[in-house]
Amino acid sequence: MAAVFRGSRILWGKCLRHADYTLVSSRSMASKTPVGFVGLGNMGNPMAKNLLKHGYPVIATDVFPESCKELQELGAQIVDNPAEVADRADRIVTMLPSSPNVIDVYTGANGILKKVKKGSLLIDSSTIDPAVSKEMAVAVEKMGAVFMDAPVSGGVGAATTGKLTFMVGGVEEEFTAAQELLSCMGANVVYCGAVGTGQAAKICNNMLLAIGMIGTSETMNLGIRLGLDPKLLAKILNMSSGRCWSSDTYNPVPGVMEGVPSGNNYQGGFGTQLMAKDLGLAQATATNTKTPVPLGSLAHQIYRMMCARGYAGKDFSSVFMFLREEEEAVEKEKEQSQ
Amino acid sequence: MAAVFRGSRILWGKCLRHADYTLVSSRSMASKTPVGFVGLGNMGNPMAKNLLKHGYPVIATDVFPESCKELQELGAQIVDNPAEVADRADRIVTMLPSSPNVIDVYTGANGILKKVKKGSLLIDSSTIDPAVSKEMAVAVEKMGAVFMDAPVSGGVGAATTGKLTFMVGGVEEEFTAAQELLSCMGANVVYCGAVGTGQAAKICNNMLLAIGMIGTSETMNLGIRLGLDPKLLAKILNMSSGRCWSSDTYNPVPGVMEGVPSGNNYQGGFGTQLMAKDLGLAQATATNTKTPVPLGSLAHQIYRMMCARGYAGKDFSSVFMFLREEEEAVEKEKEQSQ
Amino acid sequence: MAAVFRGSRILWGKCLRHADYTLVSSRSMASKTPVGFVGLGNMGNPMAKNLLKHGYPVIATDVFPESCKELQELGAQIVDNPAEVADRADRIVTMLPSSPNVIDVYTGANGILKKVKKGSLLIDSSTIDPAVSKEMAVAVEKMGAVFMDAPVSGGVGAATTGKLTFMVGGVEEEFTAAQELLSCMGANVVYCGAVGTGQAAKICNNMLLAIGMIGTSETMNLGIRLGLDPKLLAKILNMSSGRCWSSDTYNPVPGVMEGVPSGNNYQGGFGTQLMAKDLGLAQATATNTKTPVPLGSLAHQIYRMMCARGYAGKDFSSVFMFLREEEEAVEKEKEQSQ
Amino acid sequence: MAAVFRGSRILWGKCLRHADYTLVSSRSMASKTPVGFVGLGNMGNPMAKNLLKHGYPVIATDVFPESCKELQELGAQIVDNPAEVADRADRIVTMLPSSPNVIDVYTGANGILKKVKKGSLLIDSSTIDPAVSKEMAVAVEKMGAVFMDAPVSGGVGAATTGKLTFMVGGVEEEFTAAQELLSCMGANVVYCGAVGTGQAAKICNNMLLAIGMIGTSETMNLGIRLGLDPKLLAKILNMSSGRCWSSDTYNPVPGVMEGVPSGNNYQGGFGTQLMAKDLGLAQATATNTKTPVPLGSLAHQIYRMMCARGYAGKDFSSVFMFLREEEEAVEKEKEQSQ
Repeated sequence: MAAVFRGSRILWGKCLRHADYTLVSSRSMASKTPVGFVGLGNMGNPMAKNLLKHGYPVIATDVFPESCKELQELGAQIVDNPAEVADRADRIVTMLPSSPNVIDVYTGANGILKKVKKGSLLIDSSTIDPAVSKEMAVAVEKMGAVFMDAPVSGGVGAATTGKLTFMVGGVEEEFTAAQELLSCMGANVVYCGAVGTGQAAKICNNMLLAIGMIGTSETMNLGIRLGLDPKLLAKILNMSSGRCWSSDTYNPVPGVMEGVPSGNNYQGGFGTQLMAKDLGLAQATATNTKTPVPLGSLAHQIYRMMCARGYAGKDFSSVFMFLREEEEAVEKEKEQSQ
Repeated sequence: MAAVFRGSRILWGKCLRHADYTLVSSRSMASKTPVGFVGLGNMGNPMAKNLLKHGYPVIATDVFPESCKELQELGAQIVDNPAEVADRADRIVTMLPSSPNVIDVYTGANGILKKVKKGSLLIDSSTIDPAVSKEMAVAVEKMGAVFMDAPVSGGVGAATTGKLTFMVGGVEEEFTAAQELLSCMGANVVYCGAVGTGQAAKICNNMLLAIGMIGTSETMNLGIRLGLDPKLLAKILNMSSGRCWSSDTYNPVPGVMEGVPSGNNYQGGFGTQLMAKDLGLAQATATNTKTPVPLGSLAHQIYRMMCARGYAGKDFSSVFMFLREEEEAVEKEKEQSQ
Repeated sequence: MAAVFRGSRILWGKCLRHADYTLVSSRSMASKTPVGFVGLGNMGNPMAKNLLKHGYPVIATDVFPESCKELQELGAQIVDNPAEVADRADRIVTMLPSSPNVIDVYTGANGILKKVKKGSLLIDSSTIDPAVSKEMAVAVEKMGAVFMDAPVSGGVGAATTGKLTFMVGGVEEEFTAAQELLSCMGANVVYCGAVGTGQAAKICNNMLLAIGMIGTSETMNLGIRLGLDPKLLAKILNMSSGRCWSSDTYNPVPGVMEGVPSGNNYQGGFGTQLMAKDLGLAQATATNTKTPVPLGSLAHQIYRMMCARGYAGKDFSSVFMFLREEEEAVEKEKEQSQ
Repeated sequence: MAAVFRGSRILWGKCLRHADYTLVSSRSMASKTPVGFVGLGNMGNPMAKNLLKHGYPVIATDVFPESCKELQELGAQIVDNPAEVADRADRIVTMLPSSPNVIDVYTGANGILKKVKKGSLLIDSSTIDPAVSKEMAVAVEKMGAVFMDAPVSGGVGAATTGKLTFMVGGVEEEFTAAQELLSCMGANVVYCGAVGTGQAAKICNNMLLAIGMIGTSETMNLGIRLGLDPKLLAKILNMSSGRCWSSDTYNPVPGVMEGVPSGNNYQGGFGTQLMAKDLGLAQATATNTKTPVPLGSLAHQIYRMMCARGYAGKDFSSVFMFLREEEEAVEKEKEQSQ
């Protein structure tokens, strides 16, 4: 490991003009120095626990004090705000709900940048607009520290078992240092390119996922209406060109697969509301870059309509139920048409 | 083989009240008796050749006499019209462009039903509205014969190499007899259920395929605009929940994969116009069954717009090019905004 | 009136080769000879009453005998089936729910064509696929009679008060004869062109109506969310380029206008289910003519989804409620995001 | 006029705590004191000219010096930057292409806020995100001045003839003062509510306009394909419930109306690219407020695709041409299907 870092230090000399060499070096070499963690929600909590499990002292904070209790009992040190975290740790992971939270945690009155040390490595695992990631990177670099975006794929389950996938954007020379921490919390850590590309990869994947899920749902629904057995139809799609993750791994039709939310009344999994949020980010980046995304845009609208009709908390595969004709509705329609 | 048919004969006694038992029996047992073939277009031609290769005498016809020449030189007997085919063969495969052609070939003035023998097996491999397949089945059954729909997946290449996939709908007891012929022309022969379900499976698969292809195209386009390397993005999608056949097997972005139409200026493959036709069928069946198919419907409209803009003959993965901003257009826009 | 017909008789000599001149002539000149009516549903019933009011003897039938009672009490003669109607009247109006009903009433075992007299004028006011209207016209013409399609705009209210709009397709020379009857039931009778163009005009109008209604609903909803007063927003749209019938005459937002279904819990008016049916026809004709109709297609899907969610019997302006966030849903979402 | 202001002064005492009373008062009463103008593009130039025509001394600036020449020759005083404008005028109108420009002109290094006088009235006629308008209002209020958003409807023609419509958001008590200036440049000045509602009204109108225009285009195209005469179809729509501004005032089909861009190869009018920009704003505000706008969203995507296909500079009614099947494409398709 040391050898790797020795190499990367040389590269840093060329790339990170604002970084303080000595501090960066000490951060990298003493791998069990404290790690800061900001945001102990449903995802952040199990992620921070995994850092503890791997032997890292954790300095953490959250706007809701009660979120910190469990971690404190496990040995983490809880401080008042992000600035305090930055005062005591030179490697910090942030995991927050949306762009405004990230902006506040980094640049706010008690934000990380108030006390960040030169050479610190700041990794943001929130899913936000890549343009905001880039803004944060610029602000962080001005303080002589390094910012990387590293949003995750996989839900609370993967966070708990340490099986998340991290998509990482930032200076390539820092990737190994980020990987060291992230691999405690995830099974895959993928380098995507410059700052913001981690977010871009996450957003792109989730947009295509939403399209595939709605597409699978309407296809399965149509096939069933046309007399096909759902399991047989799934089998045919999966051996043909209609195959996708939503058809072969996470089928939305109850009874086709086991161990997926469609078999459990769409509880657990990835909430419709979270998918709507990610599609909103995809839409915003597409609008800003003038990229036409007709299906992604319609997928966004469908998940938005679902949120307005009581599906916000159900798994996003519940779009199958949203599109399916309700028995009651069918009866009404029959009466009407007479 | 004989054993299998002995068993199925017993079942037939219960199911096929209109069928002439003796004739059906003779058809099944003498497997190298002639096979009729109607429709020698781009697909039908190589399919009929494969029947010849497997030792079946072929009696064929097509509305365009020149289409028959090559097959005649290879030993097929060419006759004037479908009725003549039915006069000389009790197993017939039809491969036609659209519903009206199928209706004409079966029920027209010189159609198969004019001379069909009792107990004949009529297999239609055209891709048409499942409602028309059901109508044909009723008309065929009235003549004491059997009708199955068996549309194919896979293009001219698969037809030539005998690697098509057949999705078969019809009386289950006849499936083995159909399979005997179809396996000469395809690698997979899948039984889907009652008459019309072969078409239903085909239509469903292609609708989801179109959604996946457009979704992959807009996602790749957005990712590239956001600074991601296309090969890397494809790799990330393919290890994540965005994975689909269009991303991992038939990627629409030039340079990402080899051996696919995107690497060859979108020549060959499955034409945009044919995809638009299949999506029109999907739309019609969805409308008739009152099934909401929002993404399938928009996919149809996009392929329809592409046909109107010069993409009719290009592979359907060319939607990537359709959505991508043209260099010239970008330049114009820049000038305008000044 | 006679003068007009004398002129049109001359034109007929050139155009209607199959029609029996003498019978046509007698039909036209004795304007108070019986008029046949097939289909006494919600619309047909008040339409037939208006013919009675204008002094026409009415010979009527319906598949549901109870539908005939009221008209019988008002003096209409009820017969068993459409063939009997055709036996006793040489001018017949049909008003039926969908294409299969029309096909059956004209060409079925007891259909009009079994006993139609040469020179009869058959006017179909059903809203159906223009392709079916054309088929009926061909079949009718073979019997030496004349067919016109004359679908209506306006609901049960307009049918009752005789204020319907008829869009008429067929031979221009017959328009005056059709107009004579139709003007008893409607305020506007518009000649649209050859057979099928009445349907085409109806379908086109309703597709644009649906687009305008959904567009108005999402626009009003967005404006309200952005802090605009709904009445003020409607006023601004109506004096600007966003103006449309749905914004200025039939506004979907409760409280903006009086005397429209949005002010009465979306009761009465034009049912969502009927709009979905008309959009299905629009979709089918667009698919058949390979015309891209992206917004019309999405409007169809939205009304189809509404039917599946309990809106089938509500006025089509209830799409405003469908798109609006439910209070309960909002609350749930807030809880989820904490 | 004085009477009105005497009344409004009293209201101000209650509402505008940060405003300097004396300065505001002097600004209002001496109506021909200089007016500042920032942004002399296609729209700003004729707007500023109309202020000159009405006798107002104009102090103007633009990033492109050549844009200022014509106005200078007409008597305007040209200064270096927005700060200089604010130094010399206490009423300023800004007319800029997009949000970043507005942010820069108000809060940049040489922005208005560097030298704005207390009590100044700053009117922004740019079309931007209402959230940015609200941010500007907050920043302006901190300096003791007043900000109103007043985007326009109507193009270069209306700007030249002084026939624009202004949709104004801001403190109601300042509306009369804003109206005094805006009525020199527009025929309608509509008060919409709090700051940002002017933008909201503009965005809502243009979203519905885009939906109506695409809807009219696909409807006209479908009707023509079904055999209807375009002029007759337009007439029928306009007397029915399909009526909208795009069908009765700005019909997109060449030959239906005179004096509209469709009669002039879609030159002039309101560019596709500008419509795409406004729809992007609508999409962003809808995403931020979690409002489903399915048709608005698809309209955005269609105009975005058009920009990518060479339509950026054509009038937005050219969507009719975009959707129409190209002759060449039709020919190709025919060849392919043989």
